[in-house]
Amino acid sequence: MHVVVNAAASADGKLSSRRREQIAISGEADFDRVDRLRADSDAVVVGVGTVLADDPSLTVKDADRRERRLEDGEPANPARVVVDSKARTPLDAEIADDAARTYVCVSEAAPVDRRMELADRPDTELVTAGEDRVDLLRAFAALQAEGLEQIMVEGGGELIFSLFEVGLVDELRVFVGPKVIGGRDAPTLADGEGFVEEFPTLALESVDRIDDGVLLTWTADGGE
Amino acid sequence: MHVVVNAAASADGKLSSRRREQIAISGEADFDRVDRLRADSDAVVVGVGTVLADDPSLTVKDADRRERRLEDGEPANPARVVVDSKARTPLDAEIADDAARTYVCVSEAAPVDRRMELADRPDTELVTAGEDRVDLLRAFAALQAEGLEQIMVEGGGELIFSLFEVGLVDELRVFVGPKVIGGRDAPTLADGEGFVEEFPTLALESVDRIDDGVLLTWTADGGE
Repeated sequence: MHVVVNAAASADGKLSSRRREQIAISGEADFDRVDRLRADSDAVVVGVGTVLADDPSLTVKDADRRERRLEDGEPANPARVVVDSKARTPLDAEIADDAARTYVCVSEAAPVDRRMELADRPDTELVTAGEDRVDLLRAFAALQAEGLEQIMVEGGGELIFSLFEVGLVDELRVFVGPKVIGGRDAPTLADGEGFVEEFPTLALESVDRIDDGVLLTWTADGGE
Repeated sequence: MHVVVNAAASADGKLSSRRREQIAISGEADFDRVDRLRADSDAVVVGVGTVLADDPSLTVKDADRRERRLEDGEPANPARVVVDSKARTPLDAEIADDAARTYVCVSEAAPVDRRMELADRPDTELVTAGEDRVDLLRAFAALQAEGLEQIMVEGGGELIFSLFEVGLVDELRVFVGPKVIGGRDAPTLADGEGFVEEFPTLALESVDRIDDGVLLTWTADGGE
């Protein structure tokens, strides 16, 4: 399994404002890059916070790319995965539509009626792993057992931090855009509790100017 | 007056961990770049949070650079400036030693005894501007009246946000380093309340790989 975290951040490292409203940070060229990365992935993963804030569909936008996937014997869109400890994903969320298969990863703490509602939907699979919070290692192992190898993570910061915490991130691609968002309560690229003594270290693979910002591609180098 | 904000941030936009401990983000080449920038500045500005957390001296480390400043008829070190609404700068802080002139910018809300103690020190000048918080426009105008034109700001995130808020930033130089710090409560490059509707926009002037990270130089392009 290969896990790529992809995000667009402001020059000060924020994913959105403290109101959690989506802000245009990148541009057309970066949107296209993200679409290509989606088309090359088996699954696109987000945290439930991102579903509730942005209601993304996470589908491939370019018709030719969907066509090529079909020619390769793949579904038109990669699978969607929501990490959703309490099963809060709305039944009418874009991510739960019929454009692709959707996995909702929940914990044992999720209300049974919500789990039943989600499990009852066509194209939706429940993955239950962990007691109070989703056990990411077990959940991702379950995804791998489903044949999902190339994984793209699109946020948010809580999920990204948790993935670094358990060592699941292979690559981090960050488009840094020409805006200052600010805010001690604004979501950042990696939120959660934060590291305090040992910090995951990265290696800078490439630096590419794109749109009015820069794409930084980091690989997890295994050190801490 | 020309104001350059300089900072080193982790790949996820943090200046330090939630414990506010200093973390080595950059390396020798970046330290040298920062020292050169200090030597080229008339004043180096920090918020009092940075003084209390890190106790920096903010002096020029390279003896040749100090020598050159003296040859040019300047003091060996640039002036130090603390933005310190409540006059909390300790009398024994490194920044208040005799290596350079130090300006402490306080508000009317600072306790009078603390203001007297600071004013009583040789090489320390009090600048009083603003009622509850330092009025940055007035304080920086007072610094300019003292002949301080080239200003370097070294953090922290609260001060940097406030400077963007009042439009005082001309340039933002960020070394982005190969670490993930994480933490929803960790200090970021721009904290404060955060922008919510209009966001300062930047223009990316240059991108330079240095040490194991990358230096991004942005200019404030005047738009929002």
